[in-house]
Amino acid sequence: MTLQKILIAGTWRDSNSTRSFRADNPATKEALADEYPISSWEDCDAALESAATAAIAMRSLTGDQIASFLEAYADRIEQRKHDLVEMAHAETALPKAPRLGDVELPRTTSQLRQAAAAARDGSWANVTIDTKAGIRSCLEAIGPVCVFGPNNFPFAFGSISGGDFAAAIAAGNPVIAKANSSHPGTTRIFAEEAHAAAQSTGMPPGIVQLIYRTSHEDGERLVADPRNGAVGYTGSRHAGLKLKAAADAVGKPIYLELSSINPIVILSGVLEERGDALAAEFASSCLMGTGQFCTNPGLVILVKGERTDSFVNSVAEKFSTAPVGTLLSRGVEKSLGENLAALQKAGAENLTPNTSASGIGYCHANTLLRVTGSSFLKDPKAFQAEAFGNASLLVIADDIEQVGAIADSLEGNLTGCIYSETTGKDDAAYDQIAPRLRVRVGRLLNDKMPTGVAVSSAMNHGGPFPATGHPGFTAVGIPASLVRFAMLQCYDNVRPHRLPANLRDKNPTGRTWRMIDGAWSQGDVGA
Amino acid sequence: MTLQKILIAGTWRDSNSTRSFRADNPATKEALADEYPISSWEDCDAALESAATAAIAMRSLTGDQIASFLEAYADRIEQRKHDLVEMAHAETALPKAPRLGDVELPRTTSQLRQAAAAARDGSWANVTIDTKAGIRSCLEAIGPVCVFGPNNFPFAFGSISGGDFAAAIAAGNPVIAKANSSHPGTTRIFAEEAHAAAQSTGMPPGIVQLIYRTSHEDGERLVADPRNGAVGYTGSRHAGLKLKAAADAVGKPIYLELSSINPIVILSGVLEERGDALAAEFASSCLMGTGQFCTNPGLVILVKGERTDSFVNSVAEKFSTAPVGTLLSRGVEKSLGENLAALQKAGAENLTPNTSASGIGYCHANTLLRVTGSSFLKDPKAFQAEAFGNASLLVIADDIEQVGAIADSLEGNLTGCIYSETTGKDDAAYDQIAPRLRVRVGRLLNDKMPTGVAVSSAMNHGGPFPATGHPGFTAVGIPASLVRFAMLQCYDNVRPHRLPANLRDKNPTGRTWRMIDGAWSQGDVGA
Repeated sequence: MTLQKILIAGTWRDSNSTRSFRADNPATKEALADEYPISSWEDCDAALESAATAAIAMRSLTGDQIASFLEAYADRIEQRKHDLVEMAHAETALPKAPRLGDVELPRTTSQLRQAAAAARDGSWANVTIDTKAGIRSCLEAIGPVCVFGPNNFPFAFGSISGGDFAAAIAAGNPVIAKANSSHPGTTRIFAEEAHAAAQSTGMPPGIVQLIYRTSHEDGERLVADPRNGAVGYTGSRHAGLKLKAAADAVGKPIYLELSSINPIVILSGVLEERGDALAAEFASSCLMGTGQFCTNPGLVILVKGERTDSFVNSVAEKFSTAPVGTLLSRGVEKSLGENLAALQKAGAENLTPNTSASGIGYCHANTLLRVTGSSFLKDPKAFQAEAFGNASLLVIADDIEQVGAIADSLEGNLTGCIYSETTGKDDAAYDQIAPRLRVRVGRLLNDKMPTGVAVSSAMNHGGPFPATGHPGFTAVGIPASLVRFAMLQCYDNVRPHRLPANLRDKNPTGRTWRMIDGAWSQGDVGA
Repeated sequence: MTLQKILIAGTWRDSNSTRSFRADNPATKEALADEYPISSWEDCDAALESAATAAIAMRSLTGDQIASFLEAYADRIEQRKHDLVEMAHAETALPKAPRLGDVELPRTTSQLRQAAAAARDGSWANVTIDTKAGIRSCLEAIGPVCVFGPNNFPFAFGSISGGDFAAAIAAGNPVIAKANSSHPGTTRIFAEEAHAAAQSTGMPPGIVQLIYRTSHEDGERLVADPRNGAVGYTGSRHAGLKLKAAADAVGKPIYLELSSINPIVILSGVLEERGDALAAEFASSCLMGTGQFCTNPGLVILVKGERTDSFVNSVAEKFSTAPVGTLLSRGVEKSLGENLAALQKAGAENLTPNTSASGIGYCHANTLLRVTGSSFLKDPKAFQAEAFGNASLLVIADDIEQVGAIADSLEGNLTGCIYSETTGKDDAAYDQIAPRLRVRVGRLLNDKMPTGVAVSSAMNHGGPFPATGHPGFTAVGIPASLVRFAMLQCYDNVRPHRLPANLRDKNPTGRTWRMIDGAWSQGDVGA
């Protein structure tokens, strides 16, 4: 069997590999036909070399030129929709429709087009001009960005198609994509289209490169290499922290999205007001996509009582009767089983013990666990182990004070949500809990499940460690996600004709927002 | 002898210490009278506990309230000027005038007042409102900030008075200050005034705390503690990287300012145009403050030739005849001597071998070294070892291509400067070198020594590793320096009356800049 080729320096070529791998079809557990190389360091080195050259060339490109590439690529993705959806379905078992074809693919092309608009507009660069001091600064490209995509969104967070890719390119950087090993074929199709779009829009050859897999050692060497500028990683905590240590040691910015259990607090009043509807809303959100969302609600905190019992029973019933979805991979199935076992060993009770997983693919029964607030507080760390998949842990607190203590014991998370009654009955409890939950999460929600992550300028898909590696940045939302892949570049007394276009007196687009002497303006300096 | 007290939880109290230290007077090499405790972990723990409480209280303060504290503190510093200048002079040997009293102290109070203005104005928080999606976000306080100040600016970068302190407080965080061991008395006076200002303006007790010194182990434990929010560190690379490793391992943002040799490229045309004036300008900048500036020009790159020889001779002459200043400490004297010896061992030639240091204090002869470009390129790392103090290394390149190769070999620096002829003779050379130097430095200068660091909104006192730990942030310049000590907090579907004031429809100050639906505005939402 011939190995698939890697994309290096603008050419599809044989990998310098010693080993290979195949992806599984999670719905059948059978290996798919295509075989992919595990790259040696030589491949990484070649990618870095080409990316370094591309990074220099890209500094001369205008925002318009970069935008043209991203838009051409988005168009090509739409033309290639059938192949992408078929391949991603085979590799991930995610439904072709609506999920892959009607939701994730449009989201992906929309992100690319929003990133293009941001590159064209230029306001993301946070231009700051101090005319009196003669100093001007802005954010500029940081250099080659290595992107490691996750298993759960083969399009929207894909290494060569997702949010990190779009942000890195829009900020002016080449991308070295490391495919997720569970969907190499999907990533390859994206790379084909990105490469074609790059050629048709005159981008440098190394702007988009693809390797499928490396040893852990080479991955760490890759991110720490002097030619690399920054890293975007979404995936497991264990692997992410290894890469972080390697990047941190040499001061390379690395942006991680790791585990998150996305706590939800449901206050007493709202249970009285609409407990049944809430049970349905929660079960649906938690089981959506077989629970394999970064923002899946894995921890629900309630105060004990009759209505809480009803809520719990209702959710347990729904979990028991809902169809069991297919999990993304053997690894997800294995870790879900292990983590649920560990939660039970720590003292959580399984409320759905009789449900059994159906189907021949990777799966695990929909699982709802319960623990008392007191037990939780005895070992908060154990009960915060993420069980990625179609499962959730309910924590039944004695009273609102205990809910507060539980909030204080939480690790950093992407999201935190509080449901409260609409006419104010829960407001005192809300005021007690919200400030404590607030500082533990990147996005605080009211009355809304966290699973949806809008590509909004105000979105924060980020949060305190260990949800991410730095609480100041978001991985979703444009233009904010671009700034991760940029460095601050200041020009002090630099002669006017030598300044980058966006720092000159004349506004280069006529609409770029610039901070001029303390005021935001779309005009020229001195106008 | 009684030990000086530490400031914990709003009270001057005895340290739980086992050891103590005294600072030297660098001008006499004699130990000063006051004895300071080396804190045990118990002191750190108490500071963290009080800071955590203060952080919660500070989240309820308005920008106005925080500004009042900073302004009251700035006023008190001015009233205490005599004591501060006398103490700092005794501890650092920096001149009382103009340096300490007329330059650094006014800069310090100006920074505090600019930070106050930023807190009051609120625009620093980068408010972003997406009315359609119902999502609003802004930067908010990150929690207690540990500040480790350097030895070279006892006021303007002091742990409890300098840029990191001002930024951390203005962003709404309490500060745990670790005094620099070479000027504990200066730091103590600042703490007295900060404490009094905090009391008079109703701040929580733990807003400002002071310990003088800890073991390295406790320092690492302090920055990694769950109660800590972030770290600001300015100092040696070795100690900084230890703290960075400890903070990185638990995802605590740490902002470092480490070594920098601040390369200057002097092109041929400008030597012809004004070589003599430039020699005087360079020697003066390099020896100012006995060369103990973060942005001291420690590396000068020139192309060989007659005019270069004249320039070199002129600078060597000035170095040999200029008075020799006092160094900040025994440690600075020792490391300067060692680093210069290492540079010479690597192959640099000493052009000032006969100058001898005068005086009875810590000092080292003004030293100018020279190496060829070819030698430099054989071991660029060795020749980039920072010799902090009154010394510089000239690199004489064969041609402009070699200057480019040298630029490519540089580590990250705070600044980089290119001097060029005024009518365009050097423009081709400039265009060849500038893009390569640009990506290695945070601030690019033309025709200007880097030693001055204006507190400008457009300033970047930062740069690629190892100058700092992240190239996206600046330690100087307001409001940009504040964002380091903040986390991104997003509100999704949160009920309007529960939003922070700056995210509500009404602009809370009538002048806070907010990004509303893609446009910067000082108005209300919907206005």
